[in-house]
Amino acid sequence: MFLRVQTHSSQEIVNITNLVLDAFASMHLSRDKGFVVLYNPHTTSALLINEGSDSSVAQDILTFLNKNIPLHDNYAHDSVDNNAHAHIKSSLFPSHLMIPFSKGSLLLGVWQGVFLLEFDGPRTRKIYMDVLYS
Amino acid sequence: MFLRVQTHSSQEIVNITNLVLDAFASMHLSRDKGFVVLYNPHTTSALLINEGSDSSVAQDILTFLNKNIPLHDNYAHDSVDNNAHAHIKSSLFPSHLMIPFSKGSLLLGVWQGVFLLEFDGPRTRKIYMDVLYS
Amino acid sequence: MFLRVQTHSSQEIVNITNLVLDAFASMHLSRDKGFVVLYNPHTTSALLINEGSDSSVAQDILTFLNKNIPLHDNYAHDSVDNNAHAHIKSSLFPSHLMIPFSKGSLLLGVWQGVFLLEFDGPRTRKIYMDVLYS
Repeated sequence: MFLRVQTHSSQEIVNITNLVLDAFASMHLSRDKGFVVLYNPHTTSALLINEGSDSSVAQDILTFLNKNIPLHDNYAHDSVDNNAHAHIKSSLFPSHLMIPFSKGSLLLGVWQGVFLLEFDGPRTRKIYMDVLYS
Repeated sequence: MFLRVQTHSSQEIVNITNLVLDAFASMHLSRDKGFVVLYNPHTTSALLINEGSDSSVAQDILTFLNKNIPLHDNYAHDSVDNNAHAHIKSSLFPSHLMIPFSKGSLLLGVWQGVFLLEFDGPRTRKIYMDVLYS
Repeated sequence: MFLRVQTHSSQEIVNITNLVLDAFASMHLSRDKGFVVLYNPHTTSALLINEGSDSSVAQDILTFLNKNIPLHDNYAHDSVDNNAHAHIKSSLFPSHLMIPFSKGSLLLGVWQGVFLLEFDGPRTRKIYMDVLYS
């Protein structure tokens, strides 16, 4: 299945924890233990698990990235498509996540949230979601 | 199952290779090929596979991180909890690892070790470990 | 199975998409849905999924890395083996990738390519490849 995430800014860290939890709750699981896998098929966005309760953490991550990977810096790819910075940023984060589950519950840590990192929005992003049983 | 790792410093890269190998040896495998999955449920620590034989590699990684992500730098999250740097650092590393195994042996490369990255210690960290068969 | 990749430079981002697609096409799949897993057993190379159609993206990623992680910078590991920068760089990228497949086709996104990141070449790199069914 695919989750759809509409982003609203050029750069944005979107908390998709509830979207993932709702999609997981709607799945018909045939066994009670395994991993949810999320896969991002895009090249200017990425996935991340980190603190979900205070949104300033996401803000600090974005500030750090923009300080070190500015929007323009004589990037070679900017002559083709004006989003080299977004490719560099997304390359530093996973294209897939795995989250364990047991007896119908995702085993996210107490402070963990799931995020979509948008570096070249706004766009509609599709995230592939499936389950592996252990 | 959960591995428990007691860290002893505020920031520390702990070689947990032997802990993982011992836990793997204690598992009752029903098939002879697949992947071990390690999952970190915390938001100020992370997991890493890199050189395990010379501990100065871990030291160089930590030095690099602290040069680029100092302990304090007007982070927004520092007004809530004084560990924004630890969230940024951990966001650059995986929350899960997969290591292939075959016929009862983990297929770690000759120079590879498994590490827990502690950025806000000392704490007792729990790492979830399970197996997927292929 | 192992994919073999011969690199030709000290640092190089090699597009291995076709190698992965050919290897996948040669596999005898017993079920029609799951994930391909690629695992890098080395400590000075890594794996990445990002834009595959314009090679300047890979060039920009390498330029960014060399700007922030120079070849020599008083690294502790350089007194043991002269490649500390390669360990730091590879630590920022995954040691494994997962790519979903369905009905015999890899579900790579339109712009996605699969890359081997070589930071201490030229070498012959082996990448482990297996399938997990969902």
